[in-house]
Amino acid sequence: MTPMPRTAQELARRIDQTNLNPQATAEEIIHFTETAIKYDFLTISVMPGWIPLINKTFPNSPIIIDPAIGFPLGTVTTEQKVRETLWVLNHLPSNAEIDMVMNIPMLKSRQYKQVIDDISRVVSAAKGHTVKVIIEAPILNPDEIIIASLLCQKAGAHFVKTSTGFNHFRGWRPSTPEDVQLIRSAVGDQMQIKIAGGIKTLAQALDALDAGADRIGTAFGIQIMDEYHRFNS
Amino acid sequence: MTPMPRTAQELARRIDQTNLNPQATAEEIIHFTETAIKYDFLTISVMPGWIPLINKTFPNSPIIIDPAIGFPLGTVTTEQKVRETLWVLNHLPSNAEIDMVMNIPMLKSRQYKQVIDDISRVVSAAKGHTVKVIIEAPILNPDEIIIASLLCQKAGAHFVKTSTGFNHFRGWRPSTPEDVQLIRSAVGDQMQIKIAGGIKTLAQALDALDAGADRIGTAFGIQIMDEYHRFNS
Repeated sequence: MTPMPRTAQELARRIDQTNLNPQATAEEIIHFTETAIKYDFLTISVMPGWIPLINKTFPNSPIIIDPAIGFPLGTVTTEQKVRETLWVLNHLPSNAEIDMVMNIPMLKSRQYKQVIDDISRVVSAAKGHTVKVIIEAPILNPDEIIIASLLCQKAGAHFVKTSTGFNHFRGWRPSTPEDVQLIRSAVGDQMQIKIAGGIKTLAQALDALDAGADRIGTAFGIQIMDEYHRFNS
Repeated sequence: MTPMPRTAQELARRIDQTNLNPQATAEEIIHFTETAIKYDFLTISVMPGWIPLINKTFPNSPIIIDPAIGFPLGTVTTEQKVRETLWVLNHLPSNAEIDMVMNIPMLKSRQYKQVIDDISRVVSAAKGHTVKVIIEAPILNPDEIIIASLLCQKAGAHFVKTSTGFNHFRGWRPSTPEDVQLIRSAVGDQMQIKIAGGIKTLAQALDALDAGADRIGTAFGIQIMDEYHRFNS
């Protein structure tokens, strides 16, 4: 587990600043990336299709690009997830990270072998790059969260990620510190945890980190950092 | 997964012939062991206290002795399970196997780190001897069976074992082929599965093997073999 951040920079380096809005324009993605670089966030999480634009516009940027694979449902085939992974790594610098969505219906159907294969084939295609697996905790019961986390670990992923954060419009609940604690109880200290989905304020971010989250995925990184500076200046 | 037995001998080599009756006398244990050797069962499962008697009475017997550790509740301390393990291995030949009971209340309380430590410390004390972990499936829900199985695997055990078979007098259900299939769906082909608790007939034994059980623990090994011979002579 990563210790609590003690400075603005340490906080920013725990944030995956996210824009997975399907209506985002090229202009918005450029502005988003520029601001994320300025705020020194650890990564930007975007749809794979934006990678060439970001590469071209910010050719020497140090920010890590963190595309979402199999997003948002996780129900595309493993073959498709592997192809997406190979494609993005072919277009990204060596420090890229991969966020993939678990095949949730297979988890719910107890097709555990397939769930593990789905993840481990992406991990293998990612050739050592960090792979975060989104388990969509808001639609799992506590036992399913434990099972999903253990399967991620068994498949060799680096992170369990709580949620796509993409389904709030369906009424799915946000991710909570309790989700993080439940995942931690399953995977122990050998894996990292990313909370994503509903983290919009500094208080929520600090609660999540305090519960043991190593990383925060949020579209509200700038608001969170601005809040931080307001309280620490 | 072990293939289906095709001969009486192959069937007998899949059976842990069991006498964990707390009222068994020394005379009964001697008779039990003698008969088990005659029937060529793979192992005999007994309480650790009987090991010196069996060693003394059958000094050169090839049958594997398979004592039950932390039996029947699994709620003794890890320290106690480790001490029991060290004691029995100190008194047993090199082919001994260990059946230990998982700490079920810790599983139910989501103290997964402790559940894993409890198992892995016994595995470590067993120094390469086969360790079977009894998860007491009859009092778990399907998700808990999956979690328990994944924890056994994570802790480095060799077998998941369905039940102590000791609690039928409390009305706990017997183990079923569905338990075996559920465990298999969690652990894949890298672990073995022992079904125990309620296997009393040849039909039940064959159903269990057909569902993917590698080993059968039963007090009814002789009846099962006699049935087998009746049908195959």
